[in-house]
Amino acid sequence: MSSSSSLSSLQPQGAPSLVTPDHAWPTTLQSHPDGDLIRTETAVVYCEANFAGIDGKTANGLVRHSQKYNILSVIDSQKAGLDTGMVLDGQPNGIPIHASLADALLLADGTPDYFIYGMAPSSGMLSASERGIVLEAITLGMNIVNGLHEFLNDDPEFIAASAANAVKMIDVRRPRPTKALRVFSGRITDVTCPRIAVLGTDCAIGKRTTATALVAALTDIGLKAVMICTGQTGLIQGARYGIALDAVPSQFCAGELEATIIEAFEAEQPDVIVIEGQGALSHPAFSTSSFILRGSCPDAVVLQHAPGRVNRCDFDGMAMPTPDTEIKLIETFSETRVIGLTLNHEHMSFSEVTAAISSYEGELGIPATDVLTRPVEHLVQMVLTAFPSLETPQLSERQ
Amino acid sequence: MSSSSSLSSLQPQGAPSLVTPDHAWPTTLQSHPDGDLIRTETAVVYCEANFAGIDGKTANGLVRHSQKYNILSVIDSQKAGLDTGMVLDGQPNGIPIHASLADALLLADGTPDYFIYGMAPSSGMLSASERGIVLEAITLGMNIVNGLHEFLNDDPEFIAASAANAVKMIDVRRPRPTKALRVFSGRITDVTCPRIAVLGTDCAIGKRTTATALVAALTDIGLKAVMICTGQTGLIQGARYGIALDAVPSQFCAGELEATIIEAFEAEQPDVIVIEGQGALSHPAFSTSSFILRGSCPDAVVLQHAPGRVNRCDFDGMAMPTPDTEIKLIETFSETRVIGLTLNHEHMSFSEVTAAISSYEGELGIPATDVLTRPVEHLVQMVLTAFPSLETPQLSERQ
Repeated sequence: MSSSSSLSSLQPQGAPSLVTPDHAWPTTLQSHPDGDLIRTETAVVYCEANFAGIDGKTANGLVRHSQKYNILSVIDSQKAGLDTGMVLDGQPNGIPIHASLADALLLADGTPDYFIYGMAPSSGMLSASERGIVLEAITLGMNIVNGLHEFLNDDPEFIAASAANAVKMIDVRRPRPTKALRVFSGRITDVTCPRIAVLGTDCAIGKRTTATALVAALTDIGLKAVMICTGQTGLIQGARYGIALDAVPSQFCAGELEATIIEAFEAEQPDVIVIEGQGALSHPAFSTSSFILRGSCPDAVVLQHAPGRVNRCDFDGMAMPTPDTEIKLIETFSETRVIGLTLNHEHMSFSEVTAAISSYEGELGIPATDVLTRPVEHLVQMVLTAFPSLETPQLSERQ
Repeated sequence: MSSSSSLSSLQPQGAPSLVTPDHAWPTTLQSHPDGDLIRTETAVVYCEANFAGIDGKTANGLVRHSQKYNILSVIDSQKAGLDTGMVLDGQPNGIPIHASLADALLLADGTPDYFIYGMAPSSGMLSASERGIVLEAITLGMNIVNGLHEFLNDDPEFIAASAANAVKMIDVRRPRPTKALRVFSGRITDVTCPRIAVLGTDCAIGKRTTATALVAALTDIGLKAVMICTGQTGLIQGARYGIALDAVPSQFCAGELEATIIEAFEAEQPDVIVIEGQGALSHPAFSTSSFILRGSCPDAVVLQHAPGRVNRCDFDGMAMPTPDTEIKLIETFSETRVIGLTLNHEHMSFSEVTAAISSYEGELGIPATDVLTRPVEHLVQMVLTAFPSLETPQLSERQ
């Protein structure tokens, strides 16, 4: 607990209590050393035909949580006129959905600073019509945030357009130059605080959401918790520490993650580090979590699962794994232990989630919860039971 | 056996018999559809201070097997004057070792066509002195073959030098442009012939050597066997099908391998496909084999192990895994089965290898052999026992 006492002064005023009502989203953001949350730059998020859907996960994440950009609106003609919070979580958040970029600009107070491409198609590439919309945004004088595998700064047409309009294009997924990429060294053992990875049984299932909620909840009880993002959405949300691992050459994946964790540990001296997973270790196409386990050597894993999902997203014919087989795989692949199960309640009623929690706890012998609909103490207790040394005086008083 | 009868006519004349003496290397090369082996271009291989060592694996592989280049000599001042075959396998092969590039040129008949950088350091980068030697080779008019992660065609100094001297620089590891990279599709199930992956318990342990020997041996009994290379050495050796997976962004590793296998299957209609592994599934730094298992979905795995190796190469403090733990990990990670163990006899006597084979067969319940010192039938029988449908009339006659 090297830093928890000094950290309590960094808690945002009016942070939610430990007990949050159902469906409430913990708004305590990852604490910054300066205690400030700077969101002076405005952005609209493009998510045509995909908002609240699986491939819209970058937009979905940004309207829930954005440390860097002030999100003005989302563009999706199919849901125009609705509130993004209502669509996503059943609670209004004041961020509207517009039918087009023109509508979004019409209703904004001046041209927004950024146009964020808010989708994550499995191809990782822009369609022809999307190229046109990004070029339109550039022509209108907006900077571009691009989380795709396709890099705008490598494309002559985009380079020319951005130069002509004096805007910048941020390719979030671009790894550092090959010469600067790092190989796994084993120095991860110098990181002495617990490292918890949030893995999942599929893509786009809520790993980042659960990891973000976990960091917020642990921060709220006075611990210094640092999140390590491993995908483009977390980076666009403004994560201080992270890397888009799926764009890194496989030789360097474990090493780049290890180095990022060591940097975070040395700079922040946290009590606990939470690492966002990618895809699923069992996934036929997207098993980058293998490198997340190798690079982070986590002391514990929290597994995110959607009991109501039948097939893997983007792979219609491939059945979802069960939590028990995924846990067996994770614990065979890595010297770690799965300390709890977190549920994504898509396609489930409240009572079905209740029954699933009870059933999984009995079957697996580990705690289970739904981060978005159950009290956040359940998530906190999952971690404190696994790591009693994290128990703080502050927490003990509250209990 | 769609093509085995027509293939027998493609057997090289004078191919070695099925029974090879100890220490002999099967010289039957992967059959080409045109039946020709074209090696008109000459090359010297740079491997200073590393020939026959672990980081010299590209040079080691090239003096044993090179379909594309006629290897004139190896440069390594520490072993100058020796024969590469004697140093590596105890049998002369007529490829000498020289102390320097100047010596190699002095003794060559004209300037060789290619300078091949023959090392595979874990950093994947050139040292300062190595840059000087590559530039010297360019100035002398030699084309460069580079298997490093550092791409010469991205480096202004090398670009200028190659242009000034009208030579080409081949960056073997460079993946296709991001836009052309392929995501795993599941189409691997269309490949109806057996797929056998050769994995290992460590890096630089003989996976490629065993895979090459297996393809040669299966070809020798009249099967059409195609090798899929997954590393830079196999590509430099002239593999028709392959990709340097460790340089591919992790998002596309499984898909690029799947697509390469499908291309090979459709073009060659082989009886069996052999896939070279990389690193080790259990390796803390180099676990690209996770994507090899996902992308190839192998029906079977042959596991390469070095009983005499104490620690993982390049990781002094990390103990080697045992075959049984690696087998358990592989069979948990992927729906496949390990059908046999192949041994690397480094640091072992002949009798120790004999004892190890017997011991592992008893412990693991699968056949074991040493590809370089035991009759090649043992390797062939390992595969035929697992896949009785591959048994050919030709083979039955010989038995």
